[in-house]
Amino acid sequence: MDHFADRLILRIRELGHPLCVGLDPHLDRIPPLFRQGTMAAADPRTADAVGAFLAAVLDRVDGRAAVVKPQIAFFERLGWRGLAILEEVVKKARKAGLSVLLDAKRGDIGSTAAGYAAAYLGTGAALPVDAMTVNPYLGADTLEPFYDQMRRHGRGLFVLVKTSNPGSGDFQDRALADGGSLCEAVAAALAETAAELRGPRTGWSSLGVVVGATYPGDAERIRALLPHSLFLVPGYGAQGGDAAAAVRGFVAGPDARLEGGLVNSSRGVLFPAAAVTDDSRRWERAIDEALDRAIEDLSAATTR
Amino acid sequence: MDHFADRLILRIRELGHPLCVGLDPHLDRIPPLFRQGTMAAADPRTADAVGAFLAAVLDRVDGRAAVVKPQIAFFERLGWRGLAILEEVVKKARKAGLSVLLDAKRGDIGSTAAGYAAAYLGTGAALPVDAMTVNPYLGADTLEPFYDQMRRHGRGLFVLVKTSNPGSGDFQDRALADGGSLCEAVAAALAETAAELRGPRTGWSSLGVVVGATYPGDAERIRALLPHSLFLVPGYGAQGGDAAAAVRGFVAGPDARLEGGLVNSSRGVLFPAAAVTDDSRRWERAIDEALDRAIEDLSAATTR
Repeated sequence: MDHFADRLILRIRELGHPLCVGLDPHLDRIPPLFRQGTMAAADPRTADAVGAFLAAVLDRVDGRAAVVKPQIAFFERLGWRGLAILEEVVKKARKAGLSVLLDAKRGDIGSTAAGYAAAYLGTGAALPVDAMTVNPYLGADTLEPFYDQMRRHGRGLFVLVKTSNPGSGDFQDRALADGGSLCEAVAAALAETAAELRGPRTGWSSLGVVVGATYPGDAERIRALLPHSLFLVPGYGAQGGDAAAAVRGFVAGPDARLEGGLVNSSRGVLFPAAAVTDDSRRWERAIDEALDRAIEDLSAATTR
Repeated sequence: MDHFADRLILRIRELGHPLCVGLDPHLDRIPPLFRQGTMAAADPRTADAVGAFLAAVLDRVDGRAAVVKPQIAFFERLGWRGLAILEEVVKKARKAGLSVLLDAKRGDIGSTAAGYAAAYLGTGAALPVDAMTVNPYLGADTLEPFYDQMRRHGRGLFVLVKTSNPGSGDFQDRALADGGSLCEAVAAALAETAAELRGPRTGWSSLGVVVGATYPGDAERIRALLPHSLFLVPGYGAQGGDAAAAVRGFVAGPDARLEGGLVNSSRGVLFPAAAVTDDSRRWERAIDEALDRAIEDLSAATTR
């Protein structure tokens, strides 16, 4: 059976960098080249513009990164038309051999959690992706339906542990009466299943965690609790985390590199200053250069 | 300006009960009368069947309850066609004068949170609803974009505090080093904004919280922290909470009733045993009787 973490890590070793390209189509940043109609969320042409923009982005990413991460909120913003476009984006990405990690941060109970797991990770999924993000606040039992789909279909999951935003400490950093912080307790609750879901080829687990680049100290503590979990690291680039901070939870791999996660860049790659143009060649060059910069930066940071 | 909590509480006083009808279209429970095609999630006819079923449910609920709560996961399960049907369901409900509370449990950071807030609570929203549920794990700052929309458009918000599932205690009940539990800390963090968002007519706040019927002791502690917040109470009926437990966080209203929240019933109202029929009259009678039972039960529990 396919194993999410094995496939991803083998591809990352091949490419020599852990860049994950975040697909966050901010309507006000989509360059003139792709804009249609008013670009208001309620304008039906907007979803088509987003689709054309992301298709062109995928053509640049194809063969250069292992994984893309669509943020579903930007598609929900456009109503059902946005979801229809997201289906096309996911199809195109997977056809190009890219892994698709859906940033959905879902979390619910019982049969509802099972519904989300089936919608994205099941057979006959409405939107079949390779992995998704989930929120643990509702309890460890609410992750079980996702684990079920992972066991059956080799999919991946990234549980929010420590997010990259300024206020992430409000609850995640609360000190617990029996020691440690809340985010450490969440990490500890995942350890047993993370060990169970390790891949036969790389030893990395398909049960990963989200740990922001903006809190590298936390990354080290969480790595100690979850030695086999891939880290999805947001907050690199536009949010202020540098490459060294982003890979702080990575460990020595079998080659001369640090490995153990994905570092996400969204705005830095999708919307570089030079891409504000209606010339398609210049736009392509701007995106290629932004990809090059991120890849070189992360490749250097993961060289031992 | 319209004020969510004022409008809702005034309507609840008029009706004499706090029933919220949960719209959770479990595919395997939709009665023969409405089934089309294979009823597989991937079958395009399934969304039409769900739409026909819920339209008929809304015809029964019209005039008898103040609010319906569609659970978006069941629509996402059907892909973009499910979202298109949800738009129709929401439109029909609001046209009938029902408030619509979208159970989405969204939670994200920065511009993504702003995207969700705009998608559901903004002007030109993709799916305009009266209120929605959100998850607080990412921090108090991540709720700000929702507060912004609430202030501008009078919408409502229900923050997950203590959920109804067996494992809700895993993290929500963790004792904190500086006293109290995590769910109490979440409630306390909402107090200032909850007080700000009180309605001029009833004094109830449009910033509410989710507190499961299965944990009535927690309801009392959370009520002490948030005297003006409406409680959305899941877990009544099918999940095992009785009416007395469900209204434990309610307080004396201006008439002879307890008030201060909504008690949700989904399966109990949508799928009573007698509704498994292909006779439309018998189905209507079964739903009417299920509604009567829940209304009488909750009306009795809120009579002082």
